This record gives sequence, structure tokens and C-alpha cells, in this order.
Amino acid sequence: MASVTPEKAVVLVSGGLDSATILAMAINEGLLCYALSFDYGQRHKSELTAAAKLAKNLGVKEHRVISLDLRGIGGSALTDDNIAVPEMLDTPDSGIPVTYVPARNTLFLSYALAWAEVLEARHIYIGVNAVDYSGYPDCRPEYIAAYQTMSALATKAGVEGHAAKIHTPLIDLSKAEIIRNGLKLGVDYASTISCYSADAEGRACGHCDSCYLRATGFADAGIADPTRY
Amino acid sequence: MASVTPEKAVVLVSGGLDSATILAMAINEGLLCYALSFDYGQRHKSELTAAAKLAKNLGVKEHRVISLDLRGIGGSALTDDNIAVPEMLDTPDSGIPVTYVPARNTLFLSYALAWAEVLEARHIYIGVNAVDYSGYPDCRPEYIAAYQTMSALATKAGVEGHAAKIHTPLIDLSKAEIIRNGLKLGVDYASTISCYSADAEGRACGHCDSCYLRATGFADAGIADPTRY
Repeated sequence: MASVTPEKAVVLVSGGLDSATILAMAINEGLLCYALSFDYGQRHKSELTAAAKLAKNLGVKEHRVISLDLRGIGGSALTDDNIAVPEMLDTPDSGIPVTYVPARNTLFLSYALAWAEVLEARHIYIGVNAVDYSGYPDCRPEYIAAYQTMSALATKAGVEGHAAKIHTPLIDLSKAEIIRNGLKLGVDYASTISCYSADAEGRACGHCDSCYLRATGFADAGIADPTRY
Repeated sequence: MASVTPEKAVVLVSGGLDSATILAMAINEGLLCYALSFDYGQRHKSELTAAAKLAKNLGVKEHRVISLDLRGIGGSALTDDNIAVPEMLDTPDSGIPVTYVPARNTLFLSYALAWAEVLEARHIYIGVNAVDYSGYPDCRPEYIAAYQTMSALATKAGVEGHAAKIHTPLIDLSKAEIIRNGLKLGVDYASTISCYSADAEGRACGHCDSCYLRATGFADAGIADPTRY
């Protein structure tokens, strides 16, 4: 029997609920996955520990953590100690939240694009979704479409007619739908971290935007929340 | 008399001939300039020394050097010791040169975009040009146009209707035209470095693609080449 070489995918894995789900989805598609995480001066490192554990448990080919000096750039509650993390949900109509990190997804996708080119990977997965949007410009479908167009022009792979395709399987899903999909694929959400202010042991604060979205998602899905508070 | 606050620009400054020229151009436009350089594992650091000197001499408001771990990604003669820097010119018809660094301009522009957003800068300058293109996909006008479209969708500034404009004043100029423009603006090309393999003291090899393009530019412009070999 001839063996088929699986296609490769670079998957952006933060250690959160969404990225755990897309990693499980990409693996379920039969892709050989390369997980990419970033140490960008986020307030806690426990999500990087979670990312490493997820990558190992789900069976990626390789996991890399890239250091990004976003603290040197500043401008977000997530990377600047002078801006407080909000304790209540920023609703979309209140504008762009202070947890927005300037050009974050553009930087993340650009590293994924570079690595995909070196690996000759034809796929990039990013866990942006409609709920997370809540005012983040770089989670919108029109942004992703424009990034895809740009990236095809930016790269050798694009010039040669096989630009990496950017997959956003969560973009139209609610948090509850994401959770249901992930559970079907065997994702262990207890080992994911969503909180903006988790402590060193990975316990969530229960008060920030991200905790609120996550808790509501489990409630809406009718599933017991495995988060450690 | 009312004083006018100058608009801000983030200028990508490598320490080479092209970026020295765009920095002089942006300053000549009356913009308050923030120079941004990258330490991306390039084979020599003398271009970062040149960038710092240029930024100081031309009078920028601030100069930042961001560390990019492109050696961890690999895939280019400029960042991978296992790929030799070519000694003759890669002509466009030979395809994409081995000195192409995957997604480099996309990463550079993305950091510039992030910093521009924090500074509320309305302008980004990058020294891509038609000669440097010679097979680099991310130096083409259609790539820059697509990046502009994407970046306006990516950012808070874009959502608010004042996306930073990406300026590429060299894109249609020959090396000789760039040099003539720069000399009119007082650029000291002796302190710029173009060579892919310059030594620690900033002396150029005289043999690589970049040296060839630079030497030809001075010859075509009818100007004595101040490069140190």
C-alpha cells in the first residue's frame, strides 16, 4: 500500500479554549500540525504552559514559542502594566476594548506565514471567532480575507501558486458551539486557560471579559465548566 | 503665532542606502519620525550600528530596535548559516533569490503598524524599490497595496477612519535616482551599509547582489562610491 504524506498546517495555539479547538480540528482533518505560540509579555505565563501541554497531548509534530516584544510597543491592558484589565464585559457597542493589542493577529499571522513558507505548509489555522470579536478589528472576516490576499502576494509560495490557506473554523461559531465541537473531538478544556489575569498555577480570576465569555459559553452549551477559579 | 504639531511617521530603517533615503524624505516632509530597526539574526550587526547613527544624525524623535527570531524560522541565506550568500547577481528571470527572507517585509510592516497605532502615527515609510525587487515578492507594488488594505481593516485607527498610510517613495526609482534624491537631501551614504556580508567594521564584501546593485547605482548616477570595501 502506498502511504500518503499528510499536508502540513501551522496552528496558532495560545493555550486558550478556542485555539485548543482549532488544533483538534486541524488534526481531525488529517493534517500534520506545527503549533506556534507567542511569549508577548502577556501578564501571566500559565497560558504558555497550557499551550505546551495541549500541543503534546493532541500530538503535534513540533511546538515553537516565539518571543515578541510587544511590551516595548505597549498600548494594551494585556501588555502594559499602566492600563488596567477591565472587570466587566466590554460590549461591542462600547467600541474597541482596552484589551485590544495593536496589530496582534497581524503579527501572529505573519510569523505563521513565515514558518509555513519554510515548512512548505499549505494551511494556517487561527482561532478568531465572532464572540471574541466584541470590538477587535482583527477578528473580523473581512480582515482575514484581506490578510489572505496580502499573504498570497507576500510569499514565494504565493508567487508559485500555492499560498497557504488561512483557516478560521470558529469565526461564525458561538462559544457554546465551539465547546460542543471541541468535546466531540476529545478536547480537555480543563487544561485550557482563557482568563486575562490567570495566576501562576493557571487559576482564572472569574471576573474579566474572557472569563465571562468562557463561563457563558459553558452555561449555554449546558456543560459543566471545568475551569479552575 | 499658533504652532502646528507635526504628524508622526514610523520609518523602517535598516541602515542601508534605501532606508537612509526614505528617512531623509520623511523628515523633509516635515514629519516627526520614529525609526524602527530589527535585529533578526542577520549575519552582521554593523547595519544596526549604521541605522542608529543615521537615525541620530538625521534627527529622529526615537529609534527602537526590535529583536526578531527569524533564525528560529530559517529558510534564507541571510538568516541561515547553512545557505550560502550568492556571489553574483540573481537576476529576476532566475526566480526568487536565496536571500529572500520568508515574510520579512510583512513582519517588519506589522511591527511598524503596531507601533504606529500606539503612537497615533498616520504614516509608515518603507524603502522597497523596483531594483531591490529582483524577485522578492514582498517588494512589489501590488503587495504593498494589499498590505495597506489589510492594515486598515486590522487596526483601531483603521476602524476610526485614519489608518496609517504606507509610503514607498522609492518603489519606482532606480538605484541611481535614489542616490541622487538622497544627496539632494544631504544623506551621507558613507555611513550606510548595503552589503549582505559586511564585516564587523562595516566594510562591504564587494561581491554580493546587494554590493553589485549599490556599486552600479553610484556608477549610473555618475557619483563617486563612498562605500568602504
